[in-house]
Amino acid sequence: MSELLTPETLLAHWQGHRRLTRRVIEAFPDDQLFSFSIGGMRPFGRLGWEMAGTVANTLHALEHDDWTGKGVDAGERTNTKAALLDVWDAGTARLNAEFPSYSAQYLATEQDMAWGRGSPMRFLLYQIDNEVHHRGQGYVYLRALGIEPPPFYVR
Amino acid sequence: MSELLTPETLLAHWQGHRRLTRRVIEAFPDDQLFSFSIGGMRPFGRLGWEMAGTVANTLHALEHDDWTGKGVDAGERTNTKAALLDVWDAGTARLNAEFPSYSAQYLATEQDMAWGRGSPMRFLLYQIDNEVHHRGQGYVYLRALGIEPPPFYVR
Repeated sequence: MSELLTPETLLAHWQGHRRLTRRVIEAFPDDQLFSFSIGGMRPFGRLGWEMAGTVANTLHALEHDDWTGKGVDAGERTNTKAALLDVWDAGTARLNAEFPSYSAQYLATEQDMAWGRGSPMRFLLYQIDNEVHHRGQGYVYLRALGIEPPPFYVR
Repeated sequence: MSELLTPETLLAHWQGHRRLTRRVIEAFPDDQLFSFSIGGMRPFGRLGWEMAGTVANTLHALEHDDWTGKGVDAGERTNTKAALLDVWDAGTARLNAEFPSYSAQYLATEQDMAWGRGSPMRFLLYQIDNEVHHRGQGYVYLRALGIEPPPFYVR
């Protein structure tokens, strides 16, 4: 066993981050999730919709081997915590159901993408990094609201 | 080629993040790096010292196969941007020089660690996630200071 990462551990890694991000969404008061902001940045709920949409876009790209960056129609994005969490949980289930069908071979294969040469794996890692990055913003928002964020190391 | 990640691509991934974090440190005005804070969180310069120290701690753990969580003596941590960047750059050089000597086999091998069962690889990924997380905080600090942060996608 000398694989640093397998499709299974990559999925588990992402889902661990997604569980934490879900707890951060939950930690926001309903009336602040889509309104509170610092320095002109987007409220955390808007970032949440972006992160939730990543799942559908990623699964679409994998299924169609389409790396032109076209996103799928996200449907209605109601500014309520409940609507966001519903889409979040649907994404969790879809990832668990669909992601295991993609092989390490496919995920590691480089091709031309809208963002330059890269592999689906690199794209996935970028999406996860983007989620960790935005969630870090959410931690500051919560602290500024006087709310203790969920512990970073619990996944 | 079906390796999702190799020691070489893992190192390149981390160094890409470290280059971006370095630009975020640089973007802070000297007189705000160790003083500006939101919600009682640490100033970005203090987070910078934590992230800079990660390199020495990680290389120490790898070299001695010591995962008990004992950090190495960080030396003096002067609250100046120049001192932080000097240590940052020394860490960059050390990583490039020392990390390639560790095999995928070793990095993927699970053992008992201070944080539970895991592999050096998982520890490394956690350190990188921690850096992305804290850097996300830095983006909010910069925006609150009216400063445009460096683009996230440039590594």
